[in-house]
Amino acid sequence: MAKVLVLYKTPTDPAAFDKYYATIHIPLAKQIPGLKRYDVSTGVVRTPAGPSGVHLAAELNFDSLDALAAGMASPQGQAAAADLPNFATGGVDLYLYDSKEV
Amino acid sequence: MAKVLVLYKTPTDPAAFDKYYATIHIPLAKQIPGLKRYDVSTGVVRTPAGPSGVHLAAELNFDSLDALAAGMASPQGQAAAADLPNFATGGVDLYLYDSKEV
Repeated sequence: MAKVLVLYKTPTDPAAFDKYYATIHIPLAKQIPGLKRYDVSTGVVRTPAGPSGVHLAAELNFDSLDALAAGMASPQGQAAAADLPNFATGGVDLYLYDSKEV
Repeated sequence: MAKVLVLYKTPTDPAAFDKYYATIHIPLAKQIPGLKRYDVSTGVVRTPAGPSGVHLAAELNFDSLDALAAGMASPQGQAAAADLPNFATGGVDLYLYDSKEV
């Protein structure tokens, strides 16, 4: 699968972030054409040593990098990207890549 | 699924890293008890703006956080963790979390 991995750093108001993410951003992102699977972390994101600084991890899966690029370039993909500054107050890292099971 | 997300930063010798990862580390990590799925990035890991500084992204999936913890604490999990300094010359970030499809 081709993936958009999204790591949201700890926001200024985690409760407000969680509410906005669940009620506004997920419904927006789910409209992206070609999105095949959308996984979101539940609970704490930690490192082996302890706290990670990441509040939430999300993964949007597409059949291919071409499908991913088309989805992100679509009006729905642009709307989801444009929504990030509305709630990602701690910053966000996005990684795009293809992957395979080994 | 409960996940160990592993982000390897660009190593000093990417070709040597790739060879070691494929021939030594994957076979080691696949022995971790409870590992249900192991996905590895193929090709470039980028950001929407360009290069990411991440050379390879891997995701180890387990049925639950308990299974993940048991797997990582096992001799095989400890051996895989102890192998990281042998090739992850650019550094590595690990994130552990449970996730669900939305």
